[in-house]
Amino acid sequence: MDEFMQAAIQQAKQGRQEGGIPIGSVLIKDGKIIGRGHNKRVQDGDPITHAEIDCLRNAGRIGNYRGTTLYSTLMPCYLCAGAVVQFGIKKVIVGESKTFPGAKEFMVSHGVEVIDLNLNECQQMMSEFITEKPELWNEDIGK
Amino acid sequence: MDEFMQAAIQQAKQGRQEGGIPIGSVLIKDGKIIGRGHNKRVQDGDPITHAEIDCLRNAGRIGNYRGTTLYSTLMPCYLCAGAVVQFGIKKVIVGESKTFPGAKEFMVSHGVEVIDLNLNECQQMMSEFITEKPELWNEDIGK
Repeated sequence: MDEFMQAAIQQAKQGRQEGGIPIGSVLIKDGKIIGRGHNKRVQDGDPITHAEIDCLRNAGRIGNYRGTTLYSTLMPCYLCAGAVVQFGIKKVIVGESKTFPGAKEFMVSHGVEVIDLNLNECQQMMSEFITEKPELWNEDIGK
Repeated sequence: MDEFMQAAIQQAKQGRQEGGIPIGSVLIKDGKIIGRGHNKRVQDGDPITHAEIDCLRNAGRIGNYRGTTLYSTLMPCYLCAGAVVQFGIKKVIVGESKTFPGAKEFMVSHGVEVIDLNLNECQQMMSEFITEKPELWNEDIGK
């Protein structure tokens, strides 16, 4: 696992410590982290602030997303995949997709390269959380 | 035009007065407005806060989107259409799609009913804005 996925996992852990959903994300450009974020549905009472959305918001108005790579501990849902496609982010690296298959096909069909690292650590964070707070998870994925 | 689209246009006008991009949105449930929002990219320095995103955020954690209708003055882009699909919103009513064709087909292919009111007032708001500030508009649609 590279330093960027480690930074995304760190974000997920921070979210968990805040009482939130443990999903984290970072945005990379020119080998550097230019945005970090984690899911804040619980912390901010905000259904929109998924990890990737928080990360893209924190990166600010960078104007152009050419050459950026988005990392997420979990396969992006349609909301976050929609941001990827709309902003023209061409590479997404995820920690796992067993917990949630997300919108991988949608991204791929729009020319996004999606790499699934299939990491035990990411799966375990989610399965522990879902066992503890299934209602929060179901709300987050719109069930 | 019904009162809900009028409320969305009001949001768009408010955004324009704030120096922002004139796109507005409202979320309806049981015949009532439960969220209002407008694009705040400029005002908040935030690339994520499109009108529909701001509206859904302001509606808060409603849990379940069954029976909701999202109004927007402009056809939603992939980011906002992704939110519609992910949250299970089944009806979207837009002011126009001539300025921006958006992600209509994506929503329709996921079972969303999309109604385009093709309103002159909405088109004119956008064409005036784009003539005045083309760089802001190009940034917003990721060009």
